[in-house]
Amino acid sequence: MIGSGNVSTHLAAALKNAGHRIIQVFSPNIGHASLLAYHVGAEAIDDIRHINAETDLYIIAVKDSAIADVAKQLAGHQRFMVHTSGATDLQVLLDVTSQAGVFYPLQTFSKEKELDFRTVPLCIEGADEAIAKLLIELGQTISNNIYPVDSVQRKILHLSAVFACNFPNYLYYVAQKLLAKNELDFNLLKPLIMETAEKVQRQFPAVVQTGPAVRKDEQTMSAHLQLLEDDVFLQTLYQLLSEGVMKMEKN
Amino acid sequence: MIGSGNVSTHLAAALKNAGHRIIQVFSPNIGHASLLAYHVGAEAIDDIRHINAETDLYIIAVKDSAIADVAKQLAGHQRFMVHTSGATDLQVLLDVTSQAGVFYPLQTFSKEKELDFRTVPLCIEGADEAIAKLLIELGQTISNNIYPVDSVQRKILHLSAVFACNFPNYLYYVAQKLLAKNELDFNLLKPLIMETAEKVQRQFPAVVQTGPAVRKDEQTMSAHLQLLEDDVFLQTLYQLLSEGVMKMEKN
Repeated sequence: MIGSGNVSTHLAAALKNAGHRIIQVFSPNIGHASLLAYHVGAEAIDDIRHINAETDLYIIAVKDSAIADVAKQLAGHQRFMVHTSGATDLQVLLDVTSQAGVFYPLQTFSKEKELDFRTVPLCIEGADEAIAKLLIELGQTISNNIYPVDSVQRKILHLSAVFACNFPNYLYYVAQKLLAKNELDFNLLKPLIMETAEKVQRQFPAVVQTGPAVRKDEQTMSAHLQLLEDDVFLQTLYQLLSEGVMKMEKN
Repeated sequence: MIGSGNVSTHLAAALKNAGHRIIQVFSPNIGHASLLAYHVGAEAIDDIRHINAETDLYIIAVKDSAIADVAKQLAGHQRFMVHTSGATDLQVLLDVTSQAGVFYPLQTFSKEKELDFRTVPLCIEGADEAIAKLLIELGQTISNNIYPVDSVQRKILHLSAVFACNFPNYLYYVAQKLLAKNELDFNLLKPLIMETAEKVQRQFPAVVQTGPAVRKDEQTMSAHLQLLEDDVFLQTLYQLLSEGVMKMEKN
């Protein structure tokens, strides 16, 4: 396991729990490597030259900008390798080996929060059909949701995930800060946040949209803009998002 | 119950289930009034002049712009009345009677989806302390989350709810459309949407933020903008939201 961040932590635990053996955990920070290695019964290393040359699979779960560099350092071993990135082309690995694939778990991982890996959609791509088949089989040992996805589709998925996860979380933050500024408890909004996410599990977002913008309730929207008058950034954001809501198509 | 929309439907059912008696349901559309009246064992009316003058409480759950007008039409009876709006001042009712309050359920309601009303935060305001106390007691019969909230705070809450619910739902829509355009299944994003909402039930949004913007990963952000090159609106939205994420404060 190359890397010791959020993805590595959850993926290594899931693989270990499914009966696979994690041989080593590499991180340039030996403390980070050791922590994860301890949890999954592996050896911690902080020098990539000490990597085990005989392992079945290198899982490169590092930040996107470091993937190519790591792959080059592993090239000499000519072992099977995958990366776990939504935004990175398979080609980055194909540049150094034909034994390459992608193993992209479409979820937001935090070290502080456990989750059931079997529900995580795993997007899989292989350099050829045999590799794809192998990765699908590996994937099925840890997740019930395996999707073959090529590099072009995976980039769209990653972009969509930013809209469906990172940006909504930012908007929760905006709401929480507005409440805090007015001495109101963020707990007030938590049931609403859950229900909003639950609704789209069964219906399309356009069908369940509520609020002033979808009703074209100009009076409420201008009252809201007035409440935001000390924050031009949030006013602009409110207007742009409301514009988007007003343009939503139901089908 | 004045109104037969999403809020009326859920509120009337919760009151009925708690043992209260709904006398009448009013809607200018008799079909809508009849449907809800049937479910809660009430009389349906479509002429507000036929309203029962002896009822304990008029619950005005109509669109914001109609509240003042409805209140005026009920003024002659001088009975206790509340509205259920997040964005409307109590004063709108005080203009016609001193027996007034607010009973604002902070949730996104759809007629198609049931929910447990006991989890819904109920924001309560009364024209005086005695009324507030009465409404709190009524609220406690249907919800475990009662919050006394004045008109100024309630407007902030309503604005925050737009950021925490309506806008995230719009972003789910954007993601779903991006997937559809590329023949990808919206199901792929559903676990991510749930997990994003679940994370902030226990931690502040700033602590659990993930994605390219919070990592200041310029390479991925510009790749995303390129994927959106046929949609200037979404490009602008992506940039503005990313800017917001980059400015997030952890405390």
